[in-house]
Amino acid sequence: MITALVRLRKELTKNKLDAALISSVSNITYLTNYSGFSKEEREAYLFITEDKQYVLTDGRYSQAVKTLIPDFELIEISSKNPVKEMLKNLKLKHKIKNLGFEGHNISFLEHKKLLQRFDDSNHRSFDFLRSVKTSDEISKIEQACKLGDKTFTHILKFIKKGISEKELAFKIEFFIKKNGADISFRPIVAFGKNSAIPHHLLTNNKLTNNQMVLLDFGVKLNNYCSDMTRTVFFGKPTREQRKIYQTVLNAQQKALEHLGRWRGNDLDSSEVDRIARDYIISKGYKTIPHSLGHGIGIDVHEAPRLSPKSKDILKVGMVFSIEPGVYIPDFGGVRIEDLVALEKNKIRLITTSPKKIIEL
Amino acid sequence: MITALVRLRKELTKNKLDAALISSVSNITYLTNYSGFSKEEREAYLFITEDKQYVLTDGRYSQAVKTLIPDFELIEISSKNPVKEMLKNLKLKHKIKNLGFEGHNISFLEHKKLLQRFDDSNHRSFDFLRSVKTSDEISKIEQACKLGDKTFTHILKFIKKGISEKELAFKIEFFIKKNGADISFRPIVAFGKNSAIPHHLLTNNKLTNNQMVLLDFGVKLNNYCSDMTRTVFFGKPTREQRKIYQTVLNAQQKALEHLGRWRGNDLDSSEVDRIARDYIISKGYKTIPHSLGHGIGIDVHEAPRLSPKSKDILKVGMVFSIEPGVYIPDFGGVRIEDLVALEKNKIRLITTSPKKIIEL
Repeated sequence: MITALVRLRKELTKNKLDAALISSVSNITYLTNYSGFSKEEREAYLFITEDKQYVLTDGRYSQAVKTLIPDFELIEISSKNPVKEMLKNLKLKHKIKNLGFEGHNISFLEHKKLLQRFDDSNHRSFDFLRSVKTSDEISKIEQACKLGDKTFTHILKFIKKGISEKELAFKIEFFIKKNGADISFRPIVAFGKNSAIPHHLLTNNKLTNNQMVLLDFGVKLNNYCSDMTRTVFFGKPTREQRKIYQTVLNAQQKALEHLGRWRGNDLDSSEVDRIARDYIISKGYKTIPHSLGHGIGIDVHEAPRLSPKSKDILKVGMVFSIEPGVYIPDFGGVRIEDLVALEKNKIRLITTSPKKIIEL
Repeated sequence: MITALVRLRKELTKNKLDAALISSVSNITYLTNYSGFSKEEREAYLFITEDKQYVLTDGRYSQAVKTLIPDFELIEISSKNPVKEMLKNLKLKHKIKNLGFEGHNISFLEHKKLLQRFDDSNHRSFDFLRSVKTSDEISKIEQACKLGDKTFTHILKFIKKGISEKELAFKIEFFIKKNGADISFRPIVAFGKNSAIPHHLLTNNKLTNNQMVLLDFGVKLNNYCSDMTRTVFFGKPTREQRKIYQTVLNAQQKALEHLGRWRGNDLDSSEVDRIARDYIISKGYKTIPHSLGHGIGIDVHEAPRLSPKSKDILKVGMVFSIEPGVYIPDFGGVRIEDLVALEKNKIRLITTSPKKIIEL
């Protein structure tokens, strides 16, 4: 939290901003460690100057803010004290000329109503500040991954003839919640041909013999997310299925080896993507129809992005997925996804479920 | 869905708009019956002119759109065909001068990137179109309510000494999901003093003797939400607890009786709020620290709002909650919430769980 504030203030100085209005709930969580605000409705803002920090929220949250975010001063919003007026007061009090605001998060109308007094060129994204994690953050992601691995082991027991995709997804969700965590996104469970659709929506299809089973799910624990994918075989895989599986596994391995040669220097994310992608193409399959990977933390998808067009540079402290896939319409698909942390001079896999072919 | 499009087009004519860009996922669901798009990231827009309707989305959704929304023409978005260009083409093709857009839903940056060619005064909310329901919509809400009532009966069995708020909330969620539905919001479960906090966040507090138990939860089924609250007693309620309970129940009854005199005329929502509120104050308690009620449908909170300052008029086809409450800090609170549908010449309670004092 202190690191987060320091980083944000550096960014303010660098951009000649006198203050920032933070509205995205993920960034509020990052800066305060408090995650009680809704993502559905606007319930709070942070206002951060070079030496003061405020939470603007309504009476429902006053007690929580006072107790859990004591380093921030509470400004209680009500019909008598609307946000607009409170911002005006802060502008005067702190002599704010340039206020940074999150242009992708503030709505058109919200901007029109609240920020008329401020220069509208100061829209910024502060999301990237979250891309480099502290060791404490990495350890939180690791805890989430551990429960993810445990969930995978647990769920294998339920992969039986007749279970539906929806039922299996529900078992995943149930196990994670029973262990006191939350899901980081709705689990993807795809049987047979459905595994060829990267963003498959759950169906009531029941598992039959000789189908591939793709499982993509994540845990959210102490505000931090995990994400993993495994593809297993219900019955004996065919030669072609084995070949696809091995290709995806090798592609992931090649990307990891490239990362493994990393010695703390900056590294192009697009280069890592290219290595896995080219390998898959070299084996006669179509290119991966999605990015090779994405950063993860408070959000399940955040910076950096590992894709052909990404300009993101990989740095110490980043945590991201490596998830190549081969998808063959009307046949099936394989994806294998693990999370990697870039630590000083080395990379570390923080998902540890087995990747040898699993036949059930 | 057809009703929804007709309503939207009437609104366009009325406001001299040539077309609407719909971005809110709830409104997309309303207009298409399709609810597969994420609320977390922007994945689709609708573009609706007086005689044509389009879905703009990326390749992941093409198949679903073609199959499930055949009345809409698909415009596939990609890096080669970005939204901005597609909107430019639509503007030219349909000679659009005035494009309505959802100012509360489009972000500042999205507006800046996509809508520069359009007049920025045409921000509109189309949410209110959803406030008057068709009989089909009411029957969907009713189905959700039925599962909500079933959940309440089921959950009473688990109200035992030692269970925690989190565990009980999880039982609610589990039962709803096991029955093939989703939760419409995270269940609120509050024991003892915690029931005095209207928006209480779940704790690990365990139930002890002689505590009140407040349960507020909802079901989402076929895209439509339910919402209900009951407060029950674990042990014998004290005289004061009984008095509070009876006051809240009477306040709800008085509001319902006022609505019951309704014969299809327009009715001020603030008047209904006032009747329940004044009754509570007349019994020596503090005013309700929230609105008396809210509309419900695709969203768990939507128009109309029943509050002292609301200008909303209640009309045939509206479905909303009536949920008075009395909250006494450090003692506890009681809230009772039911959903009401305004049908031709009569009102109908569509949540039917018992409201006599329950002692467990």
